[in-house]
Amino acid sequence: MDLNNQLMPARARMAPADVAGLFKPKSIAVVGASANPERFSGKIIPSLLRQGYGGAIYPVNPGRGNIGGLACYPDLAAVPGDVDCVVYALAAEHIGAVLDQCRDKRVRLMVVSSAGFAERGDAQGVAMQESMLARARAAGVRVLGPNCIGFINMVSRVCVSSAAAASWPDIPQGGIGLVSQSGGLGLATILYSALEDGISFSHIVTTGNEADLDTIDIARYLIADAATDVVAMTVEAVRDKAAFFGALQEAKAAGKPVVVLKSGRTELGKTMAASHTGALAGSAAVFEAVCAQYGAICANDVDDFYQIAAMLAKLRRAGKLGTFANPGAHCAALSISGGHIGLFADHASLAGLAFPAFSGRTQAAIARELGFEGNFQNPLDTTARTIGDDGFWGRCASVLLDDAAIEVVVPIITVARTYEAAIRDFIDIAQKSGKIVVVVWAGGDFEGEGRRLLMQSNVPVFRTPARAAAAIRALDSYCRGRGRGSPQAAAHAPDASLAQARLLLQEYAAAGRSALTERESKHILHLVGFPVTRELSAESAEQAVAAARSIGYPVALKGEHPQILHKTELGLVFLGLEEPAAVSQAFAQAMAGMSRAAPGPGKVLVQEMADSGTELILGVTSDPEFGPVVVLGLGGIFVEILRDVSMRVAPFDQDEAMGMIDGLRGGRLLQGVRGQAAVDRGELARLLLRLSLFAHVNADLIREIDVNPLVLDKRNKGLLALDALIVLKQAGAAAPGLQLELAE
Amino acid sequence: MDLNNQLMPARARMAPADVAGLFKPKSIAVVGASANPERFSGKIIPSLLRQGYGGAIYPVNPGRGNIGGLACYPDLAAVPGDVDCVVYALAAEHIGAVLDQCRDKRVRLMVVSSAGFAERGDAQGVAMQESMLARARAAGVRVLGPNCIGFINMVSRVCVSSAAAASWPDIPQGGIGLVSQSGGLGLATILYSALEDGISFSHIVTTGNEADLDTIDIARYLIADAATDVVAMTVEAVRDKAAFFGALQEAKAAGKPVVVLKSGRTELGKTMAASHTGALAGSAAVFEAVCAQYGAICANDVDDFYQIAAMLAKLRRAGKLGTFANPGAHCAALSISGGHIGLFADHASLAGLAFPAFSGRTQAAIARELGFEGNFQNPLDTTARTIGDDGFWGRCASVLLDDAAIEVVVPIITVARTYEAAIRDFIDIAQKSGKIVVVVWAGGDFEGEGRRLLMQSNVPVFRTPARAAAAIRALDSYCRGRGRGSPQAAAHAPDASLAQARLLLQEYAAAGRSALTERESKHILHLVGFPVTRELSAESAEQAVAAARSIGYPVALKGEHPQILHKTELGLVFLGLEEPAAVSQAFAQAMAGMSRAAPGPGKVLVQEMADSGTELILGVTSDPEFGPVVVLGLGGIFVEILRDVSMRVAPFDQDEAMGMIDGLRGGRLLQGVRGQAAVDRGELARLLLRLSLFAHVNADLIREIDVNPLVLDKRNKGLLALDALIVLKQAGAAAPGLQLELAE
Repeated sequence: MDLNNQLMPARARMAPADVAGLFKPKSIAVVGASANPERFSGKIIPSLLRQGYGGAIYPVNPGRGNIGGLACYPDLAAVPGDVDCVVYALAAEHIGAVLDQCRDKRVRLMVVSSAGFAERGDAQGVAMQESMLARARAAGVRVLGPNCIGFINMVSRVCVSSAAAASWPDIPQGGIGLVSQSGGLGLATILYSALEDGISFSHIVTTGNEADLDTIDIARYLIADAATDVVAMTVEAVRDKAAFFGALQEAKAAGKPVVVLKSGRTELGKTMAASHTGALAGSAAVFEAVCAQYGAICANDVDDFYQIAAMLAKLRRAGKLGTFANPGAHCAALSISGGHIGLFADHASLAGLAFPAFSGRTQAAIARELGFEGNFQNPLDTTARTIGDDGFWGRCASVLLDDAAIEVVVPIITVARTYEAAIRDFIDIAQKSGKIVVVVWAGGDFEGEGRRLLMQSNVPVFRTPARAAAAIRALDSYCRGRGRGSPQAAAHAPDASLAQARLLLQEYAAAGRSALTERESKHILHLVGFPVTRELSAESAEQAVAAARSIGYPVALKGEHPQILHKTELGLVFLGLEEPAAVSQAFAQAMAGMSRAAPGPGKVLVQEMADSGTELILGVTSDPEFGPVVVLGLGGIFVEILRDVSMRVAPFDQDEAMGMIDGLRGGRLLQGVRGQAAVDRGELARLLLRLSLFAHVNADLIREIDVNPLVLDKRNKGLLALDALIVLKQAGAAAPGLQLELAE
Repeated sequence: MDLNNQLMPARARMAPADVAGLFKPKSIAVVGASANPERFSGKIIPSLLRQGYGGAIYPVNPGRGNIGGLACYPDLAAVPGDVDCVVYALAAEHIGAVLDQCRDKRVRLMVVSSAGFAERGDAQGVAMQESMLARARAAGVRVLGPNCIGFINMVSRVCVSSAAAASWPDIPQGGIGLVSQSGGLGLATILYSALEDGISFSHIVTTGNEADLDTIDIARYLIADAATDVVAMTVEAVRDKAAFFGALQEAKAAGKPVVVLKSGRTELGKTMAASHTGALAGSAAVFEAVCAQYGAICANDVDDFYQIAAMLAKLRRAGKLGTFANPGAHCAALSISGGHIGLFADHASLAGLAFPAFSGRTQAAIARELGFEGNFQNPLDTTARTIGDDGFWGRCASVLLDDAAIEVVVPIITVARTYEAAIRDFIDIAQKSGKIVVVVWAGGDFEGEGRRLLMQSNVPVFRTPARAAAAIRALDSYCRGRGRGSPQAAAHAPDASLAQARLLLQEYAAAGRSALTERESKHILHLVGFPVTRELSAESAEQAVAAARSIGYPVALKGEHPQILHKTELGLVFLGLEEPAAVSQAFAQAMAGMSRAAPGPGKVLVQEMADSGTELILGVTSDPEFGPVVVLGLGGIFVEILRDVSMRVAPFDQDEAMGMIDGLRGGRLLQGVRGQAAVDRGELARLLLRLSLFAHVNADLIREIDVNPLVLDKRNKGLLALDALIVLKQAGAAAPGLQLELAE
C-alpha cells in the first residue's frame, strides 16, 4: 500500500550520514515494555542488553515501576534524560498520542513493529498509516516500519528487535549490510541461517511497510558505512526507480557490490507480493535486466543470497574485488573425489565458468607435488592416492595459483577428516597470493578449529559444489559489470528532430489520442532516426493510383483509421499490388472494411513493397517499477512462440545496445544464415540507442511502441521499418512509478 | 576404465536376494587391520563395533597378536571360524594372494577400498584390476570395489567403512537405500549432510570401480529390500542399459521411487567423469529423457538428491505415494511472512506447481480460524496479526486440507519460536488426512522437541522454499510417471516390411557401406512407413527428362553418389525445374559436380516438388550409454539455432510419442499458425513409433538416421519425407554400450 509515496508531497531524501545517525541512538525508550519475556514487548530490552547496548534504556509502561531491574516510567514525558529512539510496542491506535510526546522529547527515530496499518489491505489500515506519518512529520520523527521487526547495528551494538534470533548469545560483527523489507526474511530466516553458517553482518534493518524510511534510505547509509563491504537487499518492489538507480551508482563508486533477492519475480509471486504490501512488482525479466544493467547481483534463493554476499565481503576485505576482469573464465578446482569433481564441473559449466588447460609447467609441478605421473586435467581429480598426505592440498593449490591462466582455485574437501593443516595452508596461500581461493567443504564434520579458522579468514567457504559455482558466477558478473559504462551517461540532450518528435506526441496527447496510426507512428519514428517505407496517404481511388505510380509498383495498400489498431485481422492490408486496377480494387475493399469496423472517415496508405529478409521487432513497454523498457526480438515465431527477447531499461549506452543484440538466443540469424544477408549490428545498435533516448525523454507520454517488423531490406541491405505503432498514455492514467520519477 | 565389462565374458546377474545375502555377513575378517585409529586400516573395526555389529570380527595382521582387544591372526587360513566377508586393507599388489586364501575359507564378499587399479587410468592399473577379477571369479568371491569406501547396512547393523562419517555415534536406520559409485559422495558428503539434517538410510553401498558388483546389482537388491522405501543412486555412467531399464521397471512394480544424481551431465563434467572411471557418459539431455521415460527422478544437486529421497520415503511409509495423480497442480501454502510466501510462490511457479483458488467455503473457514476478514489468496499470507496464536497453524492447515481442490499443504515457518504445538498439530492432521503436509522450516532454531518430532514423523520437512518446491515437483513427476505405460511394451514384433528393411540394411552393411544415398535411405524409410517423394533414378539426360515427364513438372533433381553425403553444399540440388531443357542442364551440372567431388560413377535422382508447409526433422542417434535415441525437432532455425528438440530412447509407446510432440517449445507451430495448415499429431506420432521400433530392432546396424525435412505437404495435408540419410555402423566400430547390450 504505497499510497503515502503517491499522495504525500515529494521530499528530499536525508543524507546517508544523517540516516546513519538515527541507527546509533544514545538512549532508547521502549513504549509499552513488558516484563514477560515471552511477549513481543518483553523481548526488546533483554536483546538490547544481551547484545551489549551501551546507552540508556528507559522502559515506559504506566502499570509497572520497574522492568528487569530498570526504572519504568508512566509515559515518555516522565523519562528524565534525552530519548534518541523510541521502540513502539503498543497497538496501532495509540501511536498518534505517543508521537505527540516524541516531539517534546526531540526523539529522532521511532521503530514501529506493530501491525494494523496499510498491510491490512483495507481503507482503515491505509488511513491509520497516513495519519501516523503526518503526525510523525509534524513531530520531526523518522519512522522505521510499521510492520517491521526492528534493526540490529552490530557496529554500534544496538539490537532493537523482538526477533528470536536476537537472542543469539553474542551476535558477531561482519561485513554485510542487509536491508530487508520482509522482517521474516531479514531478522529471522537470513540472520539465523547465516549465523549457523558462521556468516555475520554489520547491520540488518527491516523496513516493513516503509511508510517513511525505505529500502533506499537504508541502502545508501550502508553504502556510505565504513564497516560495510557488501550491501544486501531483499526487495518486494522498487517504488522509486531514480533513487534505486542512484543508490546502485553510489555503490559502484564506492566499490561495494549490491546483492538483491527479489520476491515476486514470477506472476504468482508478484500477486503474492502485491497482496502483502500492495507494492507494484514488475516482471522477472525486467528486474533481471535492470540488475545486469546497473551492476547489481540478482540472487536466486535465500541461501545463495547471503552466501554470495559473504563471499564478496571477504574478497573486498582482502582487496581482491577490483583485481580481476573476468575471473569466471580462469578457474581451477581440485579434489580427491572424482564424484565431486564431476559434479562441480557440471554446475560450473552450467554457470558459465571455464577451466583453462594446465600449462606444461603446471602439469609437471602437479606430478611433482602428488608424487605420481598422470594426464592432469582441470578440474583436477587427485584421486584417493593422495589420502593421508595432508600437505598435498596446499602444495597443489599453490601450483595451480602459479599458473598464469588461473585466477580462482577451488579445493573441494569431501572425505571428512580434520583438515586443519590444509586449511591453514589455504589461508596462508590466499593471503600471500593476489589470487582467489574458494573452499568447498562438501563433506560433513564442518566443525572444530579448521572451521573457526576458515570463518575468521578472508577465504570464502561453501558447503556444496552448486553453491560455490553460483557464487563464482556472481563474482564474475560483478567483475564484468564494473567495466560497464554508466547508463545515465547515455541520456544526453535530445537533438532538434527528437524535439520535433516530442512536439508531435504532445499535440496528439492534447487531442486526446491514444493509438496513433501507422503513418503517424512511422512519421515520428522517422524523426527519431528510423528508415521507414516510402508511403503516401490517399482518400480516393484516384489518389491511391497516383500515389502508387509515384512510389513505383508493386505497392502495398493499407487502411488507415485512428480507431483501428490491428489492420491485418480486419483484412485491411493488401500486399504486392502490381497495377492500377488492383490498387483501385484494394482501395474500395479497404474503405468498405473500415466503414464496417469503426465510425468516422478512414483513409488508405499506399506504400512501397520492400524485398525483406530477416525480420526483427523493436518495442518499448512501460514497466510499472522501471518506466520505459526497450525490447528487441527476432520477428515472427521467435517472439510470438519462443519469447526470445532481450531488454534494457531506457536510457542505455552503446555497449548495452550491443549486449542486447548478443543476448538473443537466435542472434546467430543476424549474421546471415540460410542464404540471408547479415544485419549490420552497428546500425541496429544505433536504432536501439535512438529508441531508448526517445522513450526516456517521452516517458510521460508514451505507453507503448511497436516497430514490427523492422526488416532487412534486400535492395540496399539496410534496416527498414515496415509497420509501427505508438500508443500514448491517457491523461491521468500514468503509471505510479513514472509519476514518482517526474515528481522528483 | 570399463575394460573389464567389455572384455570379460557376459555373466548372469545374481538374484537380488543373493546379493542381499552378501551384505549381511555373520563374520568379517579385516586383512591388513591396523591398531592405529588414524589410519584407514585402523578405522574399520572401531566403526563395526560402534555401529553395533553382532557377528564375529577377525583382525588379520602377521605383525600383531591382538588389535583393540580382539585376537589377531597372521593370515586368513589361521582364522578359526568361517569368514563370510573380507575387508581388504593392504596395497593393491597383494590382493591375488589374499583372494587365493579366500577360496579356501569360502569367503563370499571382499570389500576392496584400496586404490591402484583401473582408476589410475594406465595399462598397469587396468591389468591389475583384470587379474584381480579373474582370481576372484576363480575363488568364487564377489568383489565390492576396488576404490570404493565400503558399505553400511543399517538394517543388519553392518558398518564396513573407513569413512569418518562411520564414526557418527549411533547411525539411525531410515528408509532410503543409497548406492553410490563415488565413495566421496555416498559415504562422506551425502551421509554426513543427511545425518545433520536428521535423514537416515537403510543402506549405503559405494561401488567404486565396479570391477564386479555394480550399481545395478545393488539397486536391485535395494528394490527387493523390505526396509527400503526409496532407492537413491549417484551415477557416473550407465554401462548396462538393459539392466538399468530392468531395474527401473522392477522399482516401478515395487512402487518404490528411484532418485538419481548424475555427474558428468555437461560436456565438462563428462570429461571429468571419464577421467575418473573411464566411464562413457552420455549427454545431459539423453539422460534426463531416459529418467522421465522410465519414471526415475533426476536430481539437480546433492541437497535436492537426498532431501527428495527423504520426502518420498516418508510419503511411501505413510501410504500416500500411490494416491495422487498430479499433486503438483493442487498445492496450498500458508505463512505469517509475506516475504516467504512471495519467495515460495516464485520457486513453486518456476517448478510448475499450481495453487487453486480457495473455494468460498474455504475462504469463510479461513476468516473464522484467523479471526479476521480478508481476500484470502492461495498461497495464504496470514500476516503478522496471527503471531501469538499457536493454534492457528494447525486450524488453518486443516481448513486448507478440507478444500477438495487441494492435495498438498505447505506451512512455512519463519519467525523462529518453539513451534512444538503447531508441529504436533501438523503431524496429527497429516496422520488423519489422506492428503500431504510438507513443512518448510525456513527460520533458524531448528532444534529441540519440535525438530525431533518432525524427524520421526512421516511429515517431510525442508529448510528453504526453493528446496520444498523442487521436491514437490519431483513428487509430482513421480506420480505422473507412475501412470506412464511400460516403454518395453512398444517393442512388439516387427512386421514383414520392417523385416524387409532390415534385410536391406544387412546387405548394405555386408557390402561395407556406411552412408546410404538419399534414394536408398528413403526406400528403406518407405518400408518403415514414411510417405516419401515420388522419385526416379536416371543415368543420362534422356532418362532424367523421361523421369520428369513421368513424375510431372515441376521436379527437383539431385546428384546421387554413395560417397557424397551433403549434396547442397556441393551444388548438387536443383529445385523447381519447369521443363525438359532445365532438367537436361541440371543433369549435366550435377554429373560434373559429382565427378569433381568424388571418384566413381554418379547418378541423379529426379523427384516430385512438394508444396511444403511446416518443416520437421526426425532423427535417430546412437547414444553411447543408451543406444538408439529418437529425436524430433521443428525444421530449420528451430533445430539449427535453438536446439529445440525432444527425445526418447527407443523403443517407446504412443503416449511417449505424443509427449515428444508436446515437449517441443515451438510445438504450437504444429497447430498451424501464421496461415500454415495444422500437422496431424496422430500421424506424426505414428511415424515416431515406427522409427523408434525400426531403430530399436536395428540398433546393431544403424549409427544415425536423418529425415530432414519431413514436411507438411500442402496438396494432401499429409506428412512427406523430402530428404533422408541413413548411416550404418562400421563393422567393429560399434559403441561399447551397445556391444554390451547385444552380448546379453
